[in-house]
Amino acid sequence: MGELLRRFWMPVLLAEELLEPDSPPVRVRILCENLVAFRDSDGSVGLLDEICPHRRASLFWGRNEESGLRCVYHGWKFDTAGNCLDMPNEPAEYEFKKRVKTTAYPAVDRGGVIWAYMGPKELQPELPELEWARVPAGHRAISKQYQINNWAQAVEGGIDSSHVSFLHRQFKARDLPEAMQRRAGTQAKYMLADTGPRFTVKRTDYGMLIGARREVGEAGYYWRISQFLAPFYSMIPGAIEPGQNISGHAWVPSDDDSTWTFSVTWNPVRPLLDEEQAVMHAEGGLYATIDAKYRPIRNAANDYLIDRQKQKTESYTGILGGREQDRAIQESMGPTVDRSLERLGTSDTAIIAYRRLLINMARDLQQGKEPHAAFHGDAYRVRSASLVSNESRAFDEAARQLLVSRL
Amino acid sequence: MGELLRRFWMPVLLAEELLEPDSPPVRVRILCENLVAFRDSDGSVGLLDEICPHRRASLFWGRNEESGLRCVYHGWKFDTAGNCLDMPNEPAEYEFKKRVKTTAYPAVDRGGVIWAYMGPKELQPELPELEWARVPAGHRAISKQYQINNWAQAVEGGIDSSHVSFLHRQFKARDLPEAMQRRAGTQAKYMLADTGPRFTVKRTDYGMLIGARREVGEAGYYWRISQFLAPFYSMIPGAIEPGQNISGHAWVPSDDDSTWTFSVTWNPVRPLLDEEQAVMHAEGGLYATIDAKYRPIRNAANDYLIDRQKQKTESYTGILGGREQDRAIQESMGPTVDRSLERLGTSDTAIIAYRRLLINMARDLQQGKEPHAAFHGDAYRVRSASLVSNESRAFDEAARQLLVSRL
Amino acid sequence: MGELLRRFWMPVLLAEELLEPDSPPVRVRILCENLVAFRDSDGSVGLLDEICPHRRASLFWGRNEESGLRCVYHGWKFDTAGNCLDMPNEPAEYEFKKRVKTTAYPAVDRGGVIWAYMGPKELQPELPELEWARVPAGHRAISKQYQINNWAQAVEGGIDSSHVSFLHRQFKARDLPEAMQRRAGTQAKYMLADTGPRFTVKRTDYGMLIGARREVGEAGYYWRISQFLAPFYSMIPGAIEPGQNISGHAWVPSDDDSTWTFSVTWNPVRPLLDEEQAVMHAEGGLYATIDAKYRPIRNAANDYLIDRQKQKTESYTGILGGREQDRAIQESMGPTVDRSLERLGTSDTAIIAYRRLLINMARDLQQGKEPHAAFHGDAYRVRSASLVSNESRAFDEAARQLLVSRL
Repeated sequence: MGELLRRFWMPVLLAEELLEPDSPPVRVRILCENLVAFRDSDGSVGLLDEICPHRRASLFWGRNEESGLRCVYHGWKFDTAGNCLDMPNEPAEYEFKKRVKTTAYPAVDRGGVIWAYMGPKELQPELPELEWARVPAGHRAISKQYQINNWAQAVEGGIDSSHVSFLHRQFKARDLPEAMQRRAGTQAKYMLADTGPRFTVKRTDYGMLIGARREVGEAGYYWRISQFLAPFYSMIPGAIEPGQNISGHAWVPSDDDSTWTFSVTWNPVRPLLDEEQAVMHAEGGLYATIDAKYRPIRNAANDYLIDRQKQKTESYTGILGGREQDRAIQESMGPTVDRSLERLGTSDTAIIAYRRLLINMARDLQQGKEPHAAFHGDAYRVRSASLVSNESRAFDEAARQLLVSRL
Repeated sequence: MGELLRRFWMPVLLAEELLEPDSPPVRVRILCENLVAFRDSDGSVGLLDEICPHRRASLFWGRNEESGLRCVYHGWKFDTAGNCLDMPNEPAEYEFKKRVKTTAYPAVDRGGVIWAYMGPKELQPELPELEWARVPAGHRAISKQYQINNWAQAVEGGIDSSHVSFLHRQFKARDLPEAMQRRAGTQAKYMLADTGPRFTVKRTDYGMLIGARREVGEAGYYWRISQFLAPFYSMIPGAIEPGQNISGHAWVPSDDDSTWTFSVTWNPVRPLLDEEQAVMHAEGGLYATIDAKYRPIRNAANDYLIDRQKQKTESYTGILGGREQDRAIQESMGPTVDRSLERLGTSDTAIIAYRRLLINMARDLQQGKEPHAAFHGDAYRVRSASLVSNESRAFDEAARQLLVSRL
Repeated sequence: MGELLRRFWMPVLLAEELLEPDSPPVRVRILCENLVAFRDSDGSVGLLDEICPHRRASLFWGRNEESGLRCVYHGWKFDTAGNCLDMPNEPAEYEFKKRVKTTAYPAVDRGGVIWAYMGPKELQPELPELEWARVPAGHRAISKQYQINNWAQAVEGGIDSSHVSFLHRQFKARDLPEAMQRRAGTQAKYMLADTGPRFTVKRTDYGMLIGARREVGEAGYYWRISQFLAPFYSMIPGAIEPGQNISGHAWVPSDDDSTWTFSVTWNPVRPLLDEEQAVMHAEGGLYATIDAKYRPIRNAANDYLIDRQKQKTESYTGILGGREQDRAIQESMGPTVDRSLERLGTSDTAIIAYRRLLINMARDLQQGKEPHAAFHGDAYRVRSASLVSNESRAFDEAARQLLVSRL
């Protein structure tokens, strides 16, 4: 599975973490590798093995200066490609530095995140053309948080349209701007009207399309159509009204037991409103409340600050924040859930399909078949959607219209 | 040994932790199993596998409502017997819920604690008729604390009448009500008069009777008679005067490396006095000072707040509190003491007998012989005692009279 | 390697940790053994296995009284030689105590530290006659700190004259008394004039002599001559002017993954000045800022309080304190650096020689050849030195004159 993941570009940092040329280096652990990222004097991004190849000291302590990152132990300096530019502790005539190179992964800054490619050089693919990474900066809000469980079970939460009727249920309307509150209210009503949606899953070029159909009385069917995009992206349906915001996640493996979860909200047609941004970043908003190192304030060590009284009267969980609710569940399963003990039902149709898809992709790769999606960035030009319709084939209809990124 | 323990009812929580019907669920780890306890709408206690069988989320986040505990992930709801009462994310006609059951252990509320039976259903025994669990509530005070070592070496501290002359020695009289101080003073004097008691151990139906005889000059013999009751209960001798309080412990394995220690004091003939209760719960009283999760405030991480100056002038250890003193010793041995390295003497007679007893019970069980005590709850109707006597057979005398629970 | 280390006396505590007769016992972990040290009523130092041989409780809780350390569990009492002096929980006529002995290592108080010998009794060597341990107390300042990495990679930092040009570089003069500032300034200038020193390593009776030669223009050569003394001592060159202070370290293995680092500064000819002492103990001085248990305040958990702004303008690392700078580097390599991944150059000549030396000593011992240095304490009567000279053979010259301890 690690090999499969290495066939794709991956978000590894927020762009805001490498704010300007020659800013301090940043540590990041991805796919069990400890790395250090920096932005050089030209603004290009470097992503190197954290450890200096000389005597194995950390380059995180390094000086980021004049187009390279310099180890503070003996002054060796590396550029974004991993070349050793300077080796001031050795005689100049000794051309040792030409023979030294450190591990460097291609990295680019696009759409609010730093992307890296950690696979074989000769197979470097295209960037995925995700809509959220292609809208103008003002149309997008993005955050990240660290969570202590395997990325795959986090994805399973991300594509699970069924849990929304429960885990995120509010008994008391949240303190939202009026328009948002009205939209949220309608959908909450539909969620309660039918808590056992019927799932339709369609395999696509980039992953799969997941339709969850609820019967909502006279209105007909309430469809929530999520996207799973290989290897670890999800898009959750937004409001029913067209032109509203869409949200999605990238669940990036830090290692087998922990995940960097990127949360993004974007609007394809207009900038995000100030009030929308405020709601996202507020306590209990879309973005988990985090500390300066993107570690969640509400976490397992403090039982996510669960409020048992509010669990009776305000929300299904008593835990503030959708991301916190998800994380409380996902982390409670343990670092890697033992799937042999599960009891899956019809509501887990998408989960089952997702597991098969990933396993098949990994097996294909073992047999020499490269993942199609990695080499077709344009396949990622899709959206999620919600709709209400009496049409029995609303799902296919949407697939042709609402689910396509028009950018 | 785990199999043996599973043949007995065990205290798993204080009753105060499940205060009222539909109160929040509580996590507890017993015999290496993570469990969640709740009190349903009728007040009955449920003790379930912590993990929901559906997708393996923790039921600790669950909603305790209308006679069942509901998982907040997808709303599955279980009763105290582990039946799935509701499965709202699945179509009603799909009778999946009838086929789903989660692990549930019988649990009852009696004598201030929640008891559970985690063994084979067909072998469910009687509750042990411990006196402290049978006196009226006002006659009993009970607390618990978490300690980081194997339960068996904790029991060894509980039945060790020898260490009392040392570990718990006070140089300065504690700030006790006058009557208690007088009694404590007499016994302290006897403890010092002979620090090397002779032990007599008698095997009983429920475990063993441990007599420690000290020669105290003209007064004759000071006998301290402790009880060990299978599988992990101890009773320590109280005051010499009849009708005084008795104390005991249940050392319940959380897992191989940690123990839930229940401390109980009871009076067979009268309610506990307010001043007695106050002394128990005071800093340095019988009950360790604990936080809201029953974790001790004085612990290995802070060296039990040892005061080296007070160790010279006030108490043998400089550590405040009898339970803290015990725990400092027991935890310092490591999670599981390496008994092959010990140098045992005559003062360890009871310890040796206890180990043989447990090992024999476990071996018997392997060979199909069920533990007698588990199926004879009435065998537990005993007490510990202290007495002073010139009689050479005082121990047997006591066994016939003082050591019997009259309830 | 452990066997080799056990052939030598080792610093295990600061003398200040065992301040007076019958003061509280102190825990210390050395060579993976948990020990407890105490000073008995005569002032002699005992170093015992932390665990009481009776029932395996920790003697750290012990009472240090009347020429022995007494276990608080059952009162067994041991002298500095490990004999059991008292066993008050056993009948006096039962002569068990004569048959009980606990592990005790020879320990002495000299030169500001407690030394211990943990090897075979019949091979007990001489104390190393290190100059810093032989100067009058007022000529010496000593401290220690705990660091989380293998001792050998710490030594490698200690004998690495090359990193001084980088890791410890100051852009802004530190706030030092005038004379010290002048000296530091001259040397800093030389460090920058040639950052790639040429190394000369000479094997000696006690370890090795490491000369690092820098070309500093008209002044000729700036030589820094460090000492490595088996098995884990280093001496770093002080000021060029004769009669100035010298500093050194002992890197004592607590276990495979952590080290007690003793830092010592001494003056062979005069007492240390108050202002010198003040500088050492100030924030950022020679001695790491530590807590009451000698754990560093600036540590990996807080990124050594690195200040990225100051890294641009004040010092090469942005980390305050030479010891902190060393530790940030050494700990960042991981508990034990994987040397198979290094890329060593000419500047690592001393490191390579040191590794060969240690490995050869360990191999020799395996073949029955005892380490010469352990049995020749007088071989340790050496110093480190700095000098500036046009002479091509300055190194040898110094070896005959500056590098000899005249005490």
